[in-house]
Amino acid sequence: MNEPDFTAWSREVAGRMETTLANLLTPSRVAPARLHDAMRYSTLGGGKRVRAMLAFAAGEVSNADPERLQVAAAAVEIIHAYSLIHDDLPCMDDDVLRRGKPTCHVEFDEATALLAGDALQSLAFQLLAEYRLADDPREQLKMIELFARACGSRGMAGGQAIDLDAVGKSLTLPELEHMHILKTGALIRASVLFGAHCGNGLTPAQLEHLDRYGKFVGLAFQVVDDVLDEEGSSVTLGKTAGKDKEGGKPTYTSLMGLARAKQFAQELLADAHAELKGFEGRAARLGQLADFIVHRDR
Amino acid sequence: MNEPDFTAWSREVAGRMETTLANLLTPSRVAPARLHDAMRYSTLGGGKRVRAMLAFAAGEVSNADPERLQVAAAAVEIIHAYSLIHDDLPCMDDDVLRRGKPTCHVEFDEATALLAGDALQSLAFQLLAEYRLADDPREQLKMIELFARACGSRGMAGGQAIDLDAVGKSLTLPELEHMHILKTGALIRASVLFGAHCGNGLTPAQLEHLDRYGKFVGLAFQVVDDVLDEEGSSVTLGKTAGKDKEGGKPTYTSLMGLARAKQFAQELLADAHAELKGFEGRAARLGQLADFIVHRDR
Repeated sequence: MNEPDFTAWSREVAGRMETTLANLLTPSRVAPARLHDAMRYSTLGGGKRVRAMLAFAAGEVSNADPERLQVAAAAVEIIHAYSLIHDDLPCMDDDVLRRGKPTCHVEFDEATALLAGDALQSLAFQLLAEYRLADDPREQLKMIELFARACGSRGMAGGQAIDLDAVGKSLTLPELEHMHILKTGALIRASVLFGAHCGNGLTPAQLEHLDRYGKFVGLAFQVVDDVLDEEGSSVTLGKTAGKDKEGGKPTYTSLMGLARAKQFAQELLADAHAELKGFEGRAARLGQLADFIVHRDR
Repeated sequence: MNEPDFTAWSREVAGRMETTLANLLTPSRVAPARLHDAMRYSTLGGGKRVRAMLAFAAGEVSNADPERLQVAAAAVEIIHAYSLIHDDLPCMDDDVLRRGKPTCHVEFDEATALLAGDALQSLAFQLLAEYRLADDPREQLKMIELFARACGSRGMAGGQAIDLDAVGKSLTLPELEHMHILKTGALIRASVLFGAHCGNGLTPAQLEHLDRYGKFVGLAFQVVDDVLDEEGSSVTLGKTAGKDKEGGKPTYTSLMGLARAKQFAQELLADAHAELKGFEGRAARLGQLADFIVHRDR
């Protein structure tokens, strides 16, 4: 892959996301100020913006309008931010460090963190309904439905529930995979499909390939997360390292060993690339992004 | 008002809501079962269904299709259920009793209650995008936007944040009013507007009257809540009585005294009725509902 080109592109997307999110989030001076502060604190100034990059890269396949893509990508990043705030709460993972900063409930307080997450979820749906994201408004309603399902009890929130229930238990590999397909995978797949739907002219078969790409990349993302959690330090990760193992959570590394987990990530990467074959040059960015997700070091 | 007629109607709406919600919520047997159980536990089998009644009554003004109304009303009741679950959490009001039953985090656990609330919010938006609620899909997108704003940081969640911040402080009457217009009022207004938008042919001026009706009724609802909290017992209320006063929360009764608060509720009721004048018979149900909200004993 053309490293300098990809690095420049990913910086551009991250920069564009930061500006867009800063504009879409309510200013801190507006009451209730503490709530708006907490929402901005947890959404701005950090993160790899992988989900936004996936939406933008998928948008290249469908030739989507960048103005639409940035709203769709912002909605996904806002949902991601809300999920991290709630995931870090004492009754969930009870984590104090996120992206190298104190977590929301540590910086503010538990109640504010709870409400900031709640309000961020509402904001994401507000944006998806407020801005024009598709030529046909019926199509846009379908996108909102798809996204809401990805967030809900049979998507991200369901995955978190299964994850919590798994603490101290031994999951089988298929059970672990199912959990991650919901917990992280649902939003990653939705990011890819969002980007694709912001444009036009993709056939159902092509959308199916992109969805499978999203599924493989989502799983690879989680496998690599587990590998980094096993190998990394809190300094490079920006979050508490070794936390999952310590908390008795089943991980890919605990279930299949470090070496096999690394190999599995490579297999998923190959599967992801295979789904992109029919798109030729238009999917180059999605291919680079899959490489980035598997080869990242934090 | 024609009491037997209104009672029969309100029972019919409540019955229809119960069936609709039972069908729209994912069955408990579907994994993650505990999460789906918690969602059903907190949404079904209780509550006055005031918000659903407001949507149905406003739908009579715009001659809306009952099939549409029941989905819109279900979405509002689902959001209401989510807000109660999160409001009862230890980091918020820390309440153990709701609708005469243990609160969600007491019956299940904190993490499950948090996720059940989160997933209910997603579900509400899923339903609003999935079912046809307006002839013009553009209109439906506007309804979703309006609703998301009512739920967010400048609506319900914002009101909860101001409420928390007010514990132990002395608010002025306008500050207290502003807090309630967001905390309870936003969703009540949205219920009325939702019902109205499910039908057709209302002018902007008519919608404006209905919105003001919603605002007066929403405030009256809260004033009466404070009066009942001051006068009532936990047995009739089905929740912990005297909780707000004890928790140092400013209330209408603490700010203006019990007698003046009762009088204020009557004034708001008259204001609500005044907004309905131009609609004649079509708004009869909204008028009865306002009476019910102010004269209820629990």
